[in-house]
Amino acid sequence: MPQYRLHCFPESGNSYKLGLMLTLCGQSWEPVWTDFFGGQTRSPEWRASVNEMGEIPVLEEDGTRLTQTGAALLRLAERHGRFQGETDAERYEILRWLLWDNHKLTSYLATYRFLRAFSATPSADVLAFFRGRVDGALAVAERHFEQMPFAAGDRPTVADLSMCAYLYYPAEETGYDLPESHPAVAAWLGRIAGLPGWQAPYDLIPGPRFAQKL
Amino acid sequence: MPQYRLHCFPESGNSYKLGLMLTLCGQSWEPVWTDFFGGQTRSPEWRASVNEMGEIPVLEEDGTRLTQTGAALLRLAERHGRFQGETDAERYEILRWLLWDNHKLTSYLATYRFLRAFSATPSADVLAFFRGRVDGALAVAERHFEQMPFAAGDRPTVADLSMCAYLYYPAEETGYDLPESHPAVAAWLGRIAGLPGWQAPYDLIPGPRFAQKL
Repeated sequence: MPQYRLHCFPESGNSYKLGLMLTLCGQSWEPVWTDFFGGQTRSPEWRASVNEMGEIPVLEEDGTRLTQTGAALLRLAERHGRFQGETDAERYEILRWLLWDNHKLTSYLATYRFLRAFSATPSADVLAFFRGRVDGALAVAERHFEQMPFAAGDRPTVADLSMCAYLYYPAEETGYDLPESHPAVAAWLGRIAGLPGWQAPYDLIPGPRFAQKL
Repeated sequence: MPQYRLHCFPESGNSYKLGLMLTLCGQSWEPVWTDFFGGQTRSPEWRASVNEMGEIPVLEEDGTRLTQTGAALLRLAERHGRFQGETDAERYEILRWLLWDNHKLTSYLATYRFLRAFSATPSADVLAFFRGRVDGALAVAERHFEQMPFAAGDRPTVADLSMCAYLYYPAEETGYDLPESHPAVAAWLGRIAGLPGWQAPYDLIPGPRFAQKL
């Protein structure tokens, strides 16, 4: 019986972060598909009984539930002794990039991709606004990975697993052909993809694919 | 001589988070006003020599520089033994709300306020989009504070200091009259404001006020 149950859906980059972390740590986990696009995670029942934040993913182990992907990544790193910092300075760098990702990269890119790929009538102004924010975040990442192999130094950590997730979705969804536009980011994604056990989001997270734009 | 130097400006809720944390911890700190609206923090010099993320605040102590407010809050909590978790479960709750704040509350509210209060020609579509996101985040907070005195339980922690900051700015800036719209959030803000040493953002962070909309 798998140790973990992951409430997830294939289009969710945050679900992918936890699925990837568990896989790279050699842990067994059972995916539980959740009807995000149908509103399941924002229903009063879900908020009352699973996650008051109304979000996915949710990771269950022995009856405990972990929500907020960044916090869950840090907890898994500690528990399995992988992808974490060893010194105070390294731990700080990991937190710094993890928080930056939540504020500046994942947040804007996930929303931008959602509008582009899954919304029937996105506002052109809103799309342009988010494109500008993602451009800004990717420019920071590009300069960083011109200097550094991974977010916090020479080794991959949970900061990388957080930052990379949405960037592995197809360019038709994200709107970024990274090898062309951000070669240092693309090279870093290649280094993570070289880790034993790595799989792309739509290979790792099973479930019916979203078909009808909202 | 103050122990800390805080690069900040009065309109920055993230600067206020660190100024408030230092003040509540009884630490002396010197504010260093930074011309954010003039582009200082996004200049190549600032990125190269102070913060590659192009952001404010930056906290200096003995030549070390801390950036990313959430990470700096956690570090200060550890160093001064205040506003941190005591059990694993409490530490997880703090991280969970701190990350949620960076993703869902501060990020959307800071941008919404910036567009409303400091931009000359914000797009109506973009404003409406962010208003919807802030409404969603505040609804989560309202339900939470109907049940709980503080983010992670019975005591204030750095999660509260992160979540509260932008909500203390005047309603003319934020667009939310919280005692009217979100009474449980307003009551929680009142509990934090009752901590010894608390000051409102424009009282705590000195510097010339922004005058001309961008």
